[in-house]
Amino acid sequence: MASYLVTGGAGFIGSKVISHFIDLGHEVITIDNLTTGDVANIPKGAIFIKGDCHNAKVIKSLGSFKFDAILHIAGQSSGEISFEDPVYDLQTNTQSTLLLLDLALKSGCKNFIYASTMSIYGDQDEAYFDEKMAPSPISFYGVGKLASEHYMKIYQSFGISCTSLRLFNVYGPGQNLKNLKQGMISIFLAMAAASGEISVRGSGLRYRDFVHIDDVVNAFSACVRLRDSEYRVINICTGVKTTINEVLSIIQKYWPERLVVDFLNGTPGDQFGVVGNNTVAKEKLNWEPEVTVENGISSMVNWVLGSRS
Amino acid sequence: MASYLVTGGAGFIGSKVISHFIDLGHEVITIDNLTTGDVANIPKGAIFIKGDCHNAKVIKSLGSFKFDAILHIAGQSSGEISFEDPVYDLQTNTQSTLLLLDLALKSGCKNFIYASTMSIYGDQDEAYFDEKMAPSPISFYGVGKLASEHYMKIYQSFGISCTSLRLFNVYGPGQNLKNLKQGMISIFLAMAAASGEISVRGSGLRYRDFVHIDDVVNAFSACVRLRDSEYRVINICTGVKTTINEVLSIIQKYWPERLVVDFLNGTPGDQFGVVGNNTVAKEKLNWEPEVTVENGISSMVNWVLGSRS
Repeated sequence: MASYLVTGGAGFIGSKVISHFIDLGHEVITIDNLTTGDVANIPKGAIFIKGDCHNAKVIKSLGSFKFDAILHIAGQSSGEISFEDPVYDLQTNTQSTLLLLDLALKSGCKNFIYASTMSIYGDQDEAYFDEKMAPSPISFYGVGKLASEHYMKIYQSFGISCTSLRLFNVYGPGQNLKNLKQGMISIFLAMAAASGEISVRGSGLRYRDFVHIDDVVNAFSACVRLRDSEYRVINICTGVKTTINEVLSIIQKYWPERLVVDFLNGTPGDQFGVVGNNTVAKEKLNWEPEVTVENGISSMVNWVLGSRS
Repeated sequence: MASYLVTGGAGFIGSKVISHFIDLGHEVITIDNLTTGDVANIPKGAIFIKGDCHNAKVIKSLGSFKFDAILHIAGQSSGEISFEDPVYDLQTNTQSTLLLLDLALKSGCKNFIYASTMSIYGDQDEAYFDEKMAPSPISFYGVGKLASEHYMKIYQSFGISCTSLRLFNVYGPGQNLKNLKQGMISIFLAMAAASGEISVRGSGLRYRDFVHIDDVVNAFSACVRLRDSEYRVINICTGVKTTINEVLSIIQKYWPERLVVDFLNGTPGDQFGVVGNNTVAKEKLNWEPEVTVENGISSMVNWVLGSRS
């Protein structure tokens, strides 16, 4: 049995990662401030500490635990919201990382895994984002996540194995349908369920690389088994380009009623096209995405329709 | 008469920049927390507010002023010390920038100038650092300054003219001789004055690009006269490579007594070789360094000897 600290256990990704580890029989401690997460999401069996990961006192209180790995998944996770309160974004996404890296160092934890983001790339000339590209973030969210990655590189030189997973557009059942500023597919489905009308902010020709939550959990799971002498940055993506219009078509295909789609102006810091190269994940983590967008969206539609009735 | 907010007025660079503006007849407001700066350094005529630039309340209290430019020079400025308290470094160098950029936006200030650093480059394969290189910071200090630059790029898109001056090794009379973790030449001279013995941490073959404080003040002064529709990053350096051994020779040449030099182990996050390309500064700011290292060090030796007697 291993012991893991997984931050953000009340959120979409954190709760799924914790469930996975608990199912495997491991001990999990989680911290969450419940700002966007729901306490009901925290899987049974996890030890829950309510607090901010950017609060030094909260992190210090964990000093007596011996973790086999720290998985830092908590954080303000919307590029759009980062424009409303950039300072909070910096604290929750960057200062928190520094404190947790320091905890790893002082408590002798040798494995640190971070939920980073494709927002680090920003607008690029190349079609497929790969890890060797020079980052060019265009949202406060992307800037803070990039700084965290740089900090991990320094801590790697202190002897902690650090891995940054750059998550692309994560989606799936369990996503917060009440949050209309985070998660393109869940926003669309929440709107469909509420009114039968989907408002799209930005062009339907924009494209994304949608990666299913089950595949993301597998990536985190692969990371705790990995040790490397070098700091690693790894895209977690499918390598498949899906336009917003294609997403809307798939939703309509599985949705029982006719939906109305409205196109509005875009949001600040939104990238036009995002698709990743996942060669590094395949090689380093022996990881492959298993859920296609069509299968993923259709199962998510069923989940939304089920939670509606 | 223009009105400027210059942060860090009790520090080496901030105080010299303020003197320059006051001599020209401008109004200057400064904020300093006096952590490393000395209140005696704040030039007469400047309005002084004691406080942290990363404290939202302090920055909010400035909302009634109308600044023609904000020059953000305050901050923890030692790469070495950033390893002792990375969180403080992030707050003072990055969170402060966010708050001041927000102040610029809300108060209608259209010109923001930032004291950035060559530490952003980190270790590079190329000999001469230029602004187009992909940053690779290896100290917490460099990471936080780079995040600030990314934030400025976003605020430029909000209509604020933002300029980041990447300062290389700034030196000159007025540097804090009591701070033995900041400023290579001032550290050497402080040691010489105290004991006649200079301890060098790291190889004498390391090299730096030493830029005199008078030239740095001229660069800040040129920035307030400049407006540009694009975010600008500008190296402030001489383009001249000077080894540590050469610095020691010049000091010895002008020092009245024989000095003893000891070579010790290096410090974390220290770059081996640093020299910059200043083409952009020449073109954009019409700026040229005027003080040679030999002249600069000899006048600084005189200043140190004067303050010793």
